[in-house]
Formats: sequence, C-alpha cells, structure tokens
Amino acid sequence: MNFTSDNAYGAAPEILDSITRANSGAVASYGSDGITATLGKRMNEIFGREVAVFPVVSGTAANGLALATLVPPHGAVLCHTDAHIVVDECGAVEFFSHGARLVTIEGRDGKLAVDRIARALERFRTGFVHHSQPTAVSLTQTTECGTCYRLEEIAAISALARNHGLKLHMDGARFANAVAHLGCSPAEATWRIGVDALSFGATKNGALCAEAVVFFDPESVRDFEYRRKKSGHLVSKMRFLSAQLLSYLENDRWLVSARRANAQATRLARALEVIRDVEIVHPVEANAVFAHVPDAMATRLRAAGAQFYDWAPSVGGRTLIRLVCAFATPDEDIMRFIATAQG
Amino acid sequence: MNFTSDNAYGAAPEILDSITRANSGAVASYGSDGITATLGKRMNEIFGREVAVFPVVSGTAANGLALATLVPPHGAVLCHTDAHIVVDECGAVEFFSHGARLVTIEGRDGKLAVDRIARALERFRTGFVHHSQPTAVSLTQTTECGTCYRLEEIAAISALARNHGLKLHMDGARFANAVAHLGCSPAEATWRIGVDALSFGATKNGALCAEAVVFFDPESVRDFEYRRKKSGHLVSKMRFLSAQLLSYLENDRWLVSARRANAQATRLARALEVIRDVEIVHPVEANAVFAHVPDAMATRLRAAGAQFYDWAPSVGGRTLIRLVCAFATPDEDIMRFIATAQG
Amino acid sequence: MNFTSDNAYGAAPEILDSITRANSGAVASYGSDGITATLGKRMNEIFGREVAVFPVVSGTAANGLALATLVPPHGAVLCHTDAHIVVDECGAVEFFSHGARLVTIEGRDGKLAVDRIARALERFRTGFVHHSQPTAVSLTQTTECGTCYRLEEIAAISALARNHGLKLHMDGARFANAVAHLGCSPAEATWRIGVDALSFGATKNGALCAEAVVFFDPESVRDFEYRRKKSGHLVSKMRFLSAQLLSYLENDRWLVSARRANAQATRLARALEVIRDVEIVHPVEANAVFAHVPDAMATRLRAAGAQFYDWAPSVGGRTLIRLVCAFATPDEDIMRFIATAQG
Amino acid sequence: MNFTSDNAYGAAPEILDSITRANSGAVASYGSDGITATLGKRMNEIFGREVAVFPVVSGTAANGLALATLVPPHGAVLCHTDAHIVVDECGAVEFFSHGARLVTIEGRDGKLAVDRIARALERFRTGFVHHSQPTAVSLTQTTECGTCYRLEEIAAISALARNHGLKLHMDGARFANAVAHLGCSPAEATWRIGVDALSFGATKNGALCAEAVVFFDPESVRDFEYRRKKSGHLVSKMRFLSAQLLSYLENDRWLVSARRANAQATRLARALEVIRDVEIVHPVEANAVFAHVPDAMATRLRAAGAQFYDWAPSVGGRTLIRLVCAFATPDEDIMRFIATAQG
Repeated sequence: MNFTSDNAYGAAPEILDSITRANSGAVASYGSDGITATLGKRMNEIFGREVAVFPVVSGTAANGLALATLVPPHGAVLCHTDAHIVVDECGAVEFFSHGARLVTIEGRDGKLAVDRIARALERFRTGFVHHSQPTAVSLTQTTECGTCYRLEEIAAISALARNHGLKLHMDGARFANAVAHLGCSPAEATWRIGVDALSFGATKNGALCAEAVVFFDPESVRDFEYRRKKSGHLVSKMRFLSAQLLSYLENDRWLVSARRANAQATRLARALEVIRDVEIVHPVEANAVFAHVPDAMATRLRAAGAQFYDWAPSVGGRTLIRLVCAFATPDEDIMRFIATAQG
Repeated sequence: MNFTSDNAYGAAPEILDSITRANSGAVASYGSDGITATLGKRMNEIFGREVAVFPVVSGTAANGLALATLVPPHGAVLCHTDAHIVVDECGAVEFFSHGARLVTIEGRDGKLAVDRIARALERFRTGFVHHSQPTAVSLTQTTECGTCYRLEEIAAISALARNHGLKLHMDGARFANAVAHLGCSPAEATWRIGVDALSFGATKNGALCAEAVVFFDPESVRDFEYRRKKSGHLVSKMRFLSAQLLSYLENDRWLVSARRANAQATRLARALEVIRDVEIVHPVEANAVFAHVPDAMATRLRAAGAQFYDWAPSVGGRTLIRLVCAFATPDEDIMRFIATAQG
Repeated sequence: MNFTSDNAYGAAPEILDSITRANSGAVASYGSDGITATLGKRMNEIFGREVAVFPVVSGTAANGLALATLVPPHGAVLCHTDAHIVVDECGAVEFFSHGARLVTIEGRDGKLAVDRIARALERFRTGFVHHSQPTAVSLTQTTECGTCYRLEEIAAISALARNHGLKLHMDGARFANAVAHLGCSPAEATWRIGVDALSFGATKNGALCAEAVVFFDPESVRDFEYRRKKSGHLVSKMRFLSAQLLSYLENDRWLVSARRANAQATRLARALEVIRDVEIVHPVEANAVFAHVPDAMATRLRAAGAQFYDWAPSVGGRTLIRLVCAFATPDEDIMRFIATAQG
Repeated sequence: MNFTSDNAYGAAPEILDSITRANSGAVASYGSDGITATLGKRMNEIFGREVAVFPVVSGTAANGLALATLVPPHGAVLCHTDAHIVVDECGAVEFFSHGARLVTIEGRDGKLAVDRIARALERFRTGFVHHSQPTAVSLTQTTECGTCYRLEEIAAISALARNHGLKLHMDGARFANAVAHLGCSPAEATWRIGVDALSFGATKNGALCAEAVVFFDPESVRDFEYRRKKSGHLVSKMRFLSAQLLSYLENDRWLVSARRANAQATRLARALEVIRDVEIVHPVEANAVFAHVPDAMATRLRAAGAQFYDWAPSVGGRTLIRLVCAFATPDEDIMRFIATAQG
C-alpha cells in the first residue's frame, strides 16, 4: 500500500516494451534519430499546432531549463509558495537561470489567484535597475494540493501576465491528470489560454524516466538547446527517451493512466470523507488526497503496511496526510486502505 | 556499417532485461531503493574499497558534477586540448562549477604529459588572488585518440598533482575499454594510482542511459548530492539507472563488451594499415581507429553504406577519419568495411 | 531640501582631505599598501578583537560578497521582506552566491522576529537534498524602516541561528546610525551578540565611495579574496578606499556624523507628529522618518522644493512618504521643511 | 624608483580637484546627476558619435561586464594567451558571463594575428550544440607586452570577426597610451575599425578609481545596466566617478599623461638597449619596457631602490624584467635608474 508518491511505481509495460522495440540497430545519437523526429510530429498533432519539443530526464530539469530560457539572470518568476520549483528542487531554477529569483505568493488550494499576482507585481518597477525584473509566472497544473486550475483561471492569469510582458510557464509534472480531469484538449489546456512553455511530465504517470519541455512559441526557444547540452541533459541515446514519450501518447495511454489514478484518488476520498473525524482538505480533482485524520488512524494504517507522508506535524490529535495514487496503484490497495481506515 | 560513435548502438539485451526485472512493485524513489543500495555494495567490491557512487544520465553530467565538486568557481582544471570536457560539452564544466576555467595542454596521442602539466602550472601562483587557482587535473581514459594511458603515466601525473595540491579526475566514458586493454583491476586503474574521482561510463558500452560518478575519497563528496539534485540529475525512479549499472557489472559484462569492441577496432586497424596510402595515426589501444585514408577510399566506403566522421578536412588527397567500434558492432560490418576499403 | 536618501549628499570634507593626503608617491597596489594595513589595525581596535576587513565600493557588493562567502549555491538566506538585499539590489546575492535563495519573512517595523524565523525554518529539512538549505540569517541594522534592533533582539536571533547552524550577517549600510542610537560599543553591537559578518557602511554617512566587509570569525573568510577579485571589486589604488575608511573612523567622525543625521530625523519627526493628519509610522530611531501626510501637504512641500520619495501610493487622501537625513543635511532645510509642512 | 605598475602612482592633482569640485550639495544618486550626464555628452564628442558610457571602478569589472553583455553563457571569447582577462582577473569573465569560455591564442609581442584567430575558429562548428560558440574576440590595446596594434591589424581582425558573426571587444586599460602612440583619433582607434565595446581605462593613467565601459552599438547594451547593478558596480555617488573621467578628458589630460608615460618608457628603453648584455624584448610602443638584463644588474638596481617585476625566472644569468612608467614617474627616477643600470 504505497501512497507516498506517483513516482514510487515503475513503468507501464507498454512503455517498457517501446524501449525494447527502439533498441534495434545503430542510429544517429543526440536526438537526430527517427523516433525523436516522429515524437516531434506526434506532439504537433497532440497540441494542434507546431510546437518545439525537447525530451529530458526529470521534472526538475524540465522546469529549470524552461524557466532559464524565459527569464534572464536579473529576472524574477512569480509562483505559488508551495510550488515544486520553490519547495522541492533545491534551487534548480536559480541554478539553471544563473540566479533569477522566485517570488512566492500564497493562495488557496495551491492556486495562484490573479489579484494576488497583481499585488505582487506592484512591488516591482519595470526597468528600474535596482529591482529584479518579473519576467514569468509559473503555475503548477495539477497543483501541489491535488487541485486543478479551471481554464478560465489560467486564462485570467495569462491575460495579466501578457499585460505586464511576462511569459507563462506551466509545470505539468501531472499535466495528464489535469487534462483527464478537465476533459479538454491539450491545446485548450495550454497555448489557447496563453501558456508559453510547458514542462510535460510522463515519469509520474508511467514512463521510466522521461519528461519533455514544450514551447508553443518557437521564438521563445532561443538558447534552449545549448542550455540542455551544457547541463548534461542532452542524452546520447535519445531514442530511448523519445520512445517512452511516444508510447506514453499512443492510444491515449497518458490519459487512460491519468484517469485511472484520478479515479483511485476519488474513491479514496469518498470513502475517507464520511469517516468520523476525517476531513478532506482540498478538492480532490486529480490523483492526490490531502486529509486530516486522527493520529490513531494513521498509526493503524501504517501498522497495516500503508506508506504515505505526513504533510504537517500532528495538531490536536490529528495529522494532515497526503495520499497519492498512481496509474498502477492496485485496486486491492485502495480497498485495504479504506477498510483499515474505517477500522 | 555505423562507425560514427559507440553511442550509435542501443543497449545490451541483458541490460534491457534488468530494467524489466526492476519494474515490479512500488519502491522508494530518488535512490532510496534496494537496487541502488545493492549497486553501492557492488561498486565497493569492484573497486576493492569503500567508494561513493552516484548514478547520472550522461557523461557530460558526470564530468560536470564531479569537477564542480572538486573545483571552486575561482579554480582551474588542467586538461588535454582535445578532452571531451573541452571540445564536446558546450562549457558544461564551466556551467556546473559556476565559472571555473579549463586550462588546455597539448600532448601526443591525446595524452597529458607530466612535464607539460608542470610547465602549465608555472604560469599560476598559488594563493595569488589575480590568478585562477589550479585545483584539479582531468585526464580521459581511454583518450579521445583511442589510446590508453599506462598506469605509470597516470601515477606520475597524480604524484605531480598531489605535490601541487590538485585533485585528479578521470573521465572514464570508456573506462571499461581501458581496463580491458590494461588487464588490470579497477582499483589499480584508479585510486591505487591516485585518482580521486571517476566518471564511470556505461552508456557507450551497452547501457541505455547510465553513468556513475565515483569518489574514492568520501571527503571529496561534500556538496555533490545537492549539486546533482539542483541540476535535475537526481532522477525519481533511480532504480532504473541502478539496475542498468548492476547488470553492466554482472558477470564481467562491462569488460566482455569492452574487449569485444577493442578487438573489433584492432581487427579494423590491422587490415587497414597494410593498405597502400593508409596510415594509422594513433596506437589502437581501445575501440577507436584514427586513419589517414585516400579520399577515394573514403568516398567508396560511404557509397557502400559506411558511416564515420572526417576528423579533419582533406589535405593532399587524404582525409583523417575516425572509426569507432561498439560492443554491438557486427562482425559482418567489420568484414564488409575492410573488403570495401581494400577495394 | 533633499530628503530622498543619505547618498544624495557628497563627502565629508575631512574624508576628501584624506584622499588628497593619501595621494603622495608610489605605493603597492591592490591593498598591500601601508594605509590599508593601518586600517586593519584600526578596525581591530574599533571592534576590540582581531577582525578581517575588506574595503569595497558599494553596499550591494559588500552584502553580495559577504553572503556568498557564508552561503553555498544550494543555500538559503533568511531575511526581512523589505531588506535591501531583497528589494534594492537586483538579485545581487543570487549573483554573487551563484543562485542561493532569499527566503523572505515579514515583520513589524522592518525587523525580523525570532518566532517568525523559527516558523520559516520549519519548512526546511536539514540535509534533505530536495530543499534549499538555510545557512544564514541576514538582518539590516538600522532597518529599512528607520528603526533599530535592540541588542537583545539580535542576541535572540543569533541564538536561534546558532542552534540551527546558521551564520548571522548584518547589513550595516547605516551601522553608524545604529551604534549612535544604541550608545553601545561596536563590539557589543556585533560579534558579542553573535554577528559573524558585517557590511560596514560609510558611503551614506560621509564617504565618497567606501564600504567594508568585516568578518569576526577568520574561519569564515575562506574564499573571500578570490570572490572580491573575480567580481572586479579589488580596486588597484586601494589606498584611496582605505584612506576614506580611516578618516571616517578618526576622532569618532562616523559616530558624530551619524548622531547628527539621527538628530535631524528626530527633529523632523517631533515637528511633524503634532501636525494634524500626520502620522509617524515607525519609531524614529535613526536617520529616516516614515510619515503618512495629507496629499496636499506633500504637494505643498514639493512646490517649495522639497525632494523625497512616496513610499506607497496615496490612499484616502494621504501618502506614506520617506524622509532621510544625512550627516550633511543643512539645519535650514530641516527648518524650512517643517515650516512648509506646518503650512 | 617604482616601475612595478602604472597603478602604483596615485591620482593626477587636477583629477583630485575635480572630486572636490563635484562635492557640493545634494544631487541625484546612481548616475542620474548632472556630471554623469555631461560625461555622456563629452564621450560622444570624444568618439565622434553617439556612444553608451558606463563608469565602473576597475578594469576587471569593465572587461567582465562588457564581455558578459556580448557573450552568452555557452559562448566563447577568443583572446591572447597573455591577455589580462586570461592571466590577471581570477576568472572574472567566466564569473560575469556565467561560464563563457576564454579560448587562448598565442601570438608575437602580445598581439593576436588574424590567421591564428582563423585557425582557432576552425575548431568550432557554428550552431553545433556540443561546441561552445565563439561570439567575441577580445584584444588588448596597448598589449600586455607594451606594444600597440596598428589600426590595419585591428581592422583585419574585426573583418574576420564580422565574417564569423563575432563581436569585437577592446580591453583599453591603457587605451590612452595607444591613442597617444598611434596619433589617431579615438574614433579611428575604435568603432571606425570595427570595435563594438571598449573598456576605457583611466585609473592607470591618473584617475583614483575610474574606468568606463563604452558601447559603440547601442543595440549591444541590452542588459548591461542590470548586470552592473547586480554585481555591485553601480555606485551610489556616481558623480565622483564621472567627475574623474570628465577631468581625465579635459584639456587632453588623458593624452598628455599618456604621452609622458610613453616617453619615459622610450627614454628607458633607448638607454638600456645600448648597455652590454641587455636586450629589449618587445618594441616599446607604449609605457612598458620588457628587457632581458644580467642578474647582477637587476640586483644592483634593486639595491639602489628600484622596484620592478621579474617577468620570468632567471635563465643563463639573465632575467626578463618589466618596467612600467606612469603619468607621474619622476624624471629623476628615470635618470637614476639608467645611471644605476649603466653601472
């Protein structure tokens, strides 16, 4: 019963198979192979327009490289206080961007609100050389709280961003879970509402080790390829990354997997929320459940073999826990967890 | 007939299988899994002492992270003019180290000679704040010329390095080819002759995408883990990197593969060197052959489907070409290449 | 009537004279001259212990170099939301430190409170590689709000810092104003209460262009000299910086000047606070006055030739203005300002 | 008898006076003052076109900031092996540029030769992501060897640079000595022969602490002002830097001073070259003399109080020494030095 993270699970068998299939023969390295070319075309179809796609091996690399491309060293990125780039990447954006600043903004359910962004921007004077210059907004979809921005929320943020000359980056480590929840097209979820660059996640949802940076505006790409090479993220046998991503997209596998993970989380939440003294903290719109549970229940669950993170220290006999479902979380784990929780 | 690079070939089947075997169940991410723990122990055995091992996805990352750990931003790394870190990594060492300098030194057959290093050091005054401070020597084993340092050559360099307070880094993208050629133990090839840190390559010799940074002195490791995380090189499903490396080491697979690649190169060289107007440029001690060949021969080979790099522009009707053999280069490709070359 | 900033005024005549006196003959450059040696000894006397002193040309350089010395690239600096390093240095700390993060904390009257620092630290797990690692607290004395930390406030912060293994940096761009207000010794204001490194300001209080970085723990100095050189802050004719600082310290000039500036601010505040609809916002403990004034009064003052910054947009007919007094602010400017304000 | 460096001398009295004159009253800080505005106009006149001028405090800062503006982090700067940016700035260009590489090229008398630059460029493939991308040539005028590029030499380099899309930077720490030697206009010495950015030195030739970065193409300036601020090189009381530079330019003071220093060096060289066993190593075209002298003579000179650097260790009883004359080197020092040398 592992609910620690969606990266605790391995890879989808079909994605593994795609690697084996990609293995035959000698091909050009560093991305000049046919599989990578096919991935480029497939991504154009998926997003309904020409995009620039760059496979990388981690979400941290995707975010760092994307934002360093959008933001100069004297720039600033506006983002949520709980964003992965703030909390969980050990300063990767600062590293890749040579010192750009993250300006953190609090917000309900892990979401940036447009009025708070506007207020944060008031502290900066454009062109004033003493101030770091805000040049991008980064939002996480789905959020670190397991919620999902509605399309109009993002559109409002991107309108504000555009008005201030800022680019809009989306950390889509769980982009599939968002598209699955929203029921929209990938285009509607991104460039049609003003997203300039997307960290397109696959690892958490069934790849072994593959993400992609997607730029919707080819102009934005600029030095990206140099940045990727220089940071050791241009892998030589690129076909193996591209094959994973192609298989991930094949037959809507990415959405099927995400829908399954989302559904497991919803099942968990529905079962937990009716238990006495349990409180679901954020709307469950993707594959994570945040719940205040009695400490005794947490102890009982762990004794039964459940693994999950405490998200905050215990207060008043209850602890905030995080439960993440993956594409591969077994049904029986869900059922056992619920049964154990019910006592 | 692909002789462009050893990374043109895919992965060894057993290494692919290891990934499938590593795929079952949910495990801790970011390297806290059992496979990664086993890899640590296995590396200790391989090197005959306790070492610190960090899997990464590319040789560029391995070199950049290793050297950034050894060298401060105001430091300098002495290395060969043709070293991969100089020529083929787009400034990765400078990036990872926040601006340390590569000081290039020419040398026969891709090797650093101890007297040239000594002369280069004369230009720097220790503790003189106007000078970049040499803090490491980096050598490539096997070299970019397909040659192999003899152990006593490295020992002499490391003695000089130690005398000047410098650390010794080995770029071992083709470390297996070196150990196979030298017929020594991994320990004898590294820490016993003064190597402090090793970029341990596997991708060029049969892994999909796996290298390791190995530190022989735990003191040297310092901030390495933060650097790896911050640069996006701490992959979440680490078991898949570790599994590749474990399988690579299993049953001497790494040495068997390297011996095969070396032998293919030797076969090529022996056949070519007796052809009129062909000259083998460097001793063939690993898996690469550098040859001056008549332009007509190069054209004929390419017409027959052979792929390889011109290593310098044509001069006087002859071109310097590079031929790299991999663990998987088919025998028949060797034979066809030779037959075509013989005309 | 210039109240925009204390750097709007030029230099004290005696400090100018010291430059002329320092001009005779040829001496060693880059700080190996006698005047710089004398400065080192004088600073030891001023602080009652051996210190390491490095003259630089700006407060931004002093802060950036000091913090980069204390904090690794994966580190974090805890500081007030309004700190100069956050608001007015265009990301200098990030630049000098190669990407360390500023973690901002709100606090009354420009001061960090120990409980808020403790709460901020709870978000970071020591040694957890995904988190930036807090390694320093930076406080500004006197603060950006014209207030002054009491010694016991700093002692409490330094005790917390030490408990968490953090270094304590003091941005003392207006250190003289603080010592003048507190009536304590420089030692009591710094290392005796746990300050590890001080940006010792002089420019705002009568030097032309001279600050110093002072380390109280020689161990902390490490790579400082390389950092200063590499960033272009080791000036060749160092004697001219050192002479300014020596003259600044001579005959308590620094404290006399600061007392005068503080007194001018107090005069201003006393006169303003009794005017109808004027409100002094922060305790006036140094050389700056923050006041809510009726917009009509602000307009009248400007029409009369007064210069000052609006510190926030007008709300409800009143604007928050900042008035800074310098060592050289003429008495008559104070009187005219007050008279004009009184209408 | 101080011949160690031209920065061993203090400031010209008129430049000191200009600081005193600049001291009256309160003015806008950070370069928004009238003196700085006047400097901008004066520089336009001096260079016969509109230029962008930024005062800074050191040559290292000028070079680092200028080159970081011209060259991206993945870029490379081609320069002479003995250039100040290579030998004497502790990696400042790498620091300011976030890791760009210096590619060093040997050349007679401290000069880059156009064919050697062309040969160095052959090692780099434009747009090839594995290679650092050459984006600028930096030459030093006058050179580190006391020689002076002829205008047509620079024009040839700039033509090559333009053909390869490279910018041309001139390290003019001793620009005045060059213009004085060449007898041309500042325009002819720079933008008319293709120089894009100039580090305009003043400190070595009579300022206290003032250099300027001059861009001839306003397009090139881009982020310069943010870089200057972020690196602590935007000084608050800018008028004092600008006043030095204005006074430096007034009444051709910069050229008068440089002519005097050049003439002193020529006198030294003429007297030395006829002494037995003395050999002048490079043409003396500016204010430095490089001479092989018998060790006994060097000892005798030092015993008599002469200060100068050995430029290389003694070989065969002779040592290469460097003698630098400054605007203020006394005639009697020249005469005493010559008399002592003559024995």
